[in-house]
Amino acid sequence: MGWLGRYTDTGVFVCFEGGEGSGKSTQSRLLGDALRAEGYAVRLTFEPGDTVVGKEVRRIVLSPETGDLDDRTEALLYAADKAEHVETVVLPALARGEVVITDRYVDSALAYQGAGRSLDPAELEHVARWATGDLRPHLTVVLDLEPEAGLGRFSERDRIEGESLAFHQRVRQAFLDLAAADVDHYLVLDARADIDEIAAAIRERVAPLLGQAKQEPV
Amino acid sequence: MGWLGRYTDTGVFVCFEGGEGSGKSTQSRLLGDALRAEGYAVRLTFEPGDTVVGKEVRRIVLSPETGDLDDRTEALLYAADKAEHVETVVLPALARGEVVITDRYVDSALAYQGAGRSLDPAELEHVARWATGDLRPHLTVVLDLEPEAGLGRFSERDRIEGESLAFHQRVRQAFLDLAAADVDHYLVLDARADIDEIAAAIRERVAPLLGQAKQEPV
Repeated sequence: MGWLGRYTDTGVFVCFEGGEGSGKSTQSRLLGDALRAEGYAVRLTFEPGDTVVGKEVRRIVLSPETGDLDDRTEALLYAADKAEHVETVVLPALARGEVVITDRYVDSALAYQGAGRSLDPAELEHVARWATGDLRPHLTVVLDLEPEAGLGRFSERDRIEGESLAFHQRVRQAFLDLAAADVDHYLVLDARADIDEIAAAIRERVAPLLGQAKQEPV
Repeated sequence: MGWLGRYTDTGVFVCFEGGEGSGKSTQSRLLGDALRAEGYAVRLTFEPGDTVVGKEVRRIVLSPETGDLDDRTEALLYAADKAEHVETVVLPALARGEVVITDRYVDSALAYQGAGRSLDPAELEHVARWATGDLRPHLTVVLDLEPEAGLGRFSERDRIEGESLAFHQRVRQAFLDLAAADVDHYLVLDARADIDEIAAAIRERVAPLLGQAKQEPV
């Protein structure tokens, strides 16, 4: 594979990426609500975990009881979640002309396991792209936030959130680097801005993509 | 990676491969017993499942309740099991100079998911080799058996065993092809031969490898 990427010509695939506490789930929901109000069929989803297999993988990886997990093991478990998610959730919905909005996708794998850990980034990308058949989002929204701000919102942190601040700073930079390398398919927004302003900026950027989406009279 | 393979220079890594009911676990045990009687430190192990994560993966993949699993998902879950197994079980034991005897390894992934299913064999091999850091057994013993004979031994079959006879015939051929391509590291035996004769042939072929193994006075 040459990482040219594959984009469906039916449906619209939008991905939200960013660190902990950056508002991805809130903005996913707001975008979904706005599009549904206009009559679009919307599928809100997330990684890891929005399939039967994915829930098992999420449980294994995020549980503090798992202890030290080999970096390759973790990357492969996340890749398995992605493969199942794309094949059974994302692609079928896109084929029906729906707007698929996912909270996290391949970039999270590259940022968290690649920038954050010890693995060869090229090999990690190979596995993640293979898992997803190199399916790319038409648009990835990066909600950019200093790690200090995002992590501060949680009193209890899971195994990933418990990593060092330097780890989360490398993750943040990885998202920004991915966006800078493909500006046509990325929108980077300051996560500290007003929630409604962020939602409006996303809605505006999504507008020209909606020609591929199925719309029913409201 | 160029698939040159990586062989440890301490310990001895022996792998048993073959179809269902070919006697892999019996012969693993007999080889382990013989070597222990001579004072070698032996670690008997297996894939999938001989780690905490591996047990979870095995449960997900083999359970009939899982239903249809995407082929890539299955391959990636098995690869995660391999990564954890190599890193936490196989490599530490080899580093201590032990004889590690595993019931199934990378060849099972290539044979079952590659020859048996729809995936690109080169991509599948890439993932399995990456998962294991391309660690190779010093010797792989293939216990060759017609699928009809092996499957006949079980009245209840799990999800993999329930595949078609043609599937299991492709799996058998895949093991034979892997062995033919690297005769220095493979021993193919007829699984229908006498159990003790098979054990003796394996013991003889393992003998010259034992210089790397730690031996205590018995």
